Amino acid sequence: MTARTASPARRTRIGIIGAGPAGLMLAHLLARAGIDCIVLERHTRDHVETRIRAGILEYEVAQLLRETGLGTRMDAIGFRHDGTNLLFDGALHRIDFAALTGKHVMLYSQHEVVRDLIAARLASGGEILFEAEATGIADIHTGQPVIRYMHEGQSKFLACDIVAACDGFHGIGRAALPAERLREYDRTYPFGWLGILAKAPPAKDELIYASHQNGFSLLSMRSSSVSRLYLQCAPDEDIAAWPDSRIWDELSLRLAHDGFHLQTGEIFQKSVTAMRSYVAEPMQDGRLFLAGDAAHIVPPTGAKGLNAAIADAAILARAIEAMLNRADPAPLERYTQTCLARIWKIERFSWWMTSMMHRFDGHTAFDRRMQHAELDYYASSVAGKTALAENYVGLPLA
Amino acid sequence: MTARTASPARRTRIGIIGAGPAGLMLAHLLARAGIDCIVLERHTRDHVETRIRAGILEYEVAQLLRETGLGTRMDAIGFRHDGTNLLFDGALHRIDFAALTGKHVMLYSQHEVVRDLIAARLASGGEILFEAEATGIADIHTGQPVIRYMHEGQSKFLACDIVAACDGFHGIGRAALPAERLREYDRTYPFGWLGILAKAPPAKDELIYASHQNGFSLLSMRSSSVSRLYLQCAPDEDIAAWPDSRIWDELSLRLAHDGFHLQTGEIFQKSVTAMRSYVAEPMQDGRLFLAGDAAHIVPPTGAKGLNAAIADAAILARAIEAMLNRADPAPLERYTQTCLARIWKIERFSWWMTSMMHRFDGHTAFDRRMQHAELDYYASSVAGKTALAENYVGLPLA
Repeated sequence: MTARTASPARRTRIGIIGAGPAGLMLAHLLARAGIDCIVLERHTRDHVETRIRAGILEYEVAQLLRETGLGTRMDAIGFRHDGTNLLFDGALHRIDFAALTGKHVMLYSQHEVVRDLIAARLASGGEILFEAEATGIADIHTGQPVIRYMHEGQSKFLACDIVAACDGFHGIGRAALPAERLREYDRTYPFGWLGILAKAPPAKDELIYASHQNGFSLLSMRSSSVSRLYLQCAPDEDIAAWPDSRIWDELSLRLAHDGFHLQTGEIFQKSVTAMRSYVAEPMQDGRLFLAGDAAHIVPPTGAKGLNAAIADAAILARAIEAMLNRADPAPLERYTQTCLARIWKIERFSWWMTSMMHRFDGHTAFDRRMQHAELDYYASSVAGKTALAENYVGLPLA
Repeated sequence: MTARTASPARRTRIGIIGAGPAGLMLAHLLARAGIDCIVLERHTRDHVETRIRAGILEYEVAQLLRETGLGTRMDAIGFRHDGTNLLFDGALHRIDFAALTGKHVMLYSQHEVVRDLIAARLASGGEILFEAEATGIADIHTGQPVIRYMHEGQSKFLACDIVAACDGFHGIGRAALPAERLREYDRTYPFGWLGILAKAPPAKDELIYASHQNGFSLLSMRSSSVSRLYLQCAPDEDIAAWPDSRIWDELSLRLAHDGFHLQTGEIFQKSVTAMRSYVAEPMQDGRLFLAGDAAHIVPPTGAKGLNAAIADAAILARAIEAMLNRADPAPLERYTQTCLARIWKIERFSWWMTSMMHRFDGHTAFDRRMQHAELDYYASSVAGKTALAENYVGLPLA
């Protein structure tokens, strides 16, 4: 009887919900600081390692990965991008990150980062429980909060000093914040992105953000033989209405340029993503801390979501380290404030890029001209281009 | 009979409607190029010389005034401003024009510019007909267009080579464009500015653009003893609801800062101005050309209206000179295109400053945060501050 009740209860210092970039990066940084932690992930390892998401790492995020022993595969199979491009009125305008900011970004997929983080974690004897679904968070105002979870068909408990909810927008972490203190800031956009992966060499070696009267389009890539391409569409677009030929026709139209030719090839992945801006405040209560999509969402224009999640993890790891290793609670107390000072800047940039690049059906002729004038200014003025570039390569990790 | 029909008909090369900054500057520049012109103005000289309007001259506009012999009074009684200020969350953020762009602006009232232009025009024997109201424009597709006007109780005619309609937003110039070709871009803002002039030393020697939860406020000045102050209000605000004490209370609240103290004094002028963005396209048809407010309006945030009018006049004067003195019609043919390339940038800046600084009742909590993040970014990043500064000091005069 004792054995049966004792066995489902475990203990660690930091209980982390979610093996996405935020949770795994937090575990990685804590482990390096000698702080014990366990990651609970409701999906299988294969699922999280193959989930198709973002693919641009900010300069300091890439540096952080390198500095903490995670740079090898990224530097081997990722691509360094020294700039990006805006396409409108048939003309391509390069934003030269290197010249404008002295920095660059890395093209390296989120699922590759996740794979590296999992490999590093397991290699150093760290614990990630896959198919372990967190179902409740309790006692966050005591010295020993508890995460309830289902694993191997059993309800179990993880007792810890601190709970880090890195469990995404639909996770249980944010719901555990007290409703009366939670403030939410939200915007849904009247469009989505239809994204494809195709076995086709990218028409250009850097990304192209294209503004076209039919709507936004983005040319990106996974490698020199695989293109990642997006089309602005309705938020609830029926993907069945988009046979491959229609996708290629529309992409060719929106990405038309004299200087390159869009290459077609087998489309092996198609999806529609809705676009949203969202921030929850605070990002903490008692011994519970949120990181990444659990606390905030950005629309994908400008590629900030993954980077914001990793930045949260870095801030939280440092704060936990200060508390547990140096008995300094101040950084943890200021966690929300420290994160949100960055997050609002990132939300602004993502909202601004989204607002500038997409077609809005509700726009008047004046609004369209303002959008065009924004593009024109930020593509031509050195100050304007620098403003775009310094946000794109990423703000300091605080 | 011959005498009576002949006397109301006159002839000049360029017939200019309106003795505002655009019309007078055009006349001034044409006269310097030896091109004969007559200005028709429906108001009295005293009226146009005392009309209270804008007061900031862009760097190149001030240079143009100096280079064409109009800098003496401006440099004697105007003020050079090497920067401006943003105030929000109780903190003042200086935008250092000199350091960021190497340029400055001049604080010098529009009616002083008008006075200088009238004085120069009359001193050199030029003709400005005051109380001469243009009532019609005809034959613009012939070699000799005609302006019909009322003067001294008589209907008269001014035959010319070219008609320049510098007659403001409500003038007859734009109405003479063919309706089927005219495209209009328009935005009205859901607020206005309540402006005052007061016998009170300005609290600061540079302008302060203040964002406050009660709405926008602007501290400006006419001199070291006269303040020019503005409050965001309803577009149809009843000025009777604003006794002096209420104006000072609200200004003191919105412009509160530890570093300076708002000085009060006798308010000797009060007005409410609605806010609008407007562009007409084309700005020409046949021998008719529009300049200034006749073709475009900006909201006053960022002080662009007067400068845009003078820029149009400079572009038009050069184009007319090319045509009449060098038989080159190309600049005149491209007039709309040349002006609008600048104007859309100016419209963008004015719209952006207006959007960033004012309180919009329809804003969600997310929109307010975006507005705050914009302020925060443009007040703190060197690239952001430079983007603001280079637009404020003015784009090249083409």
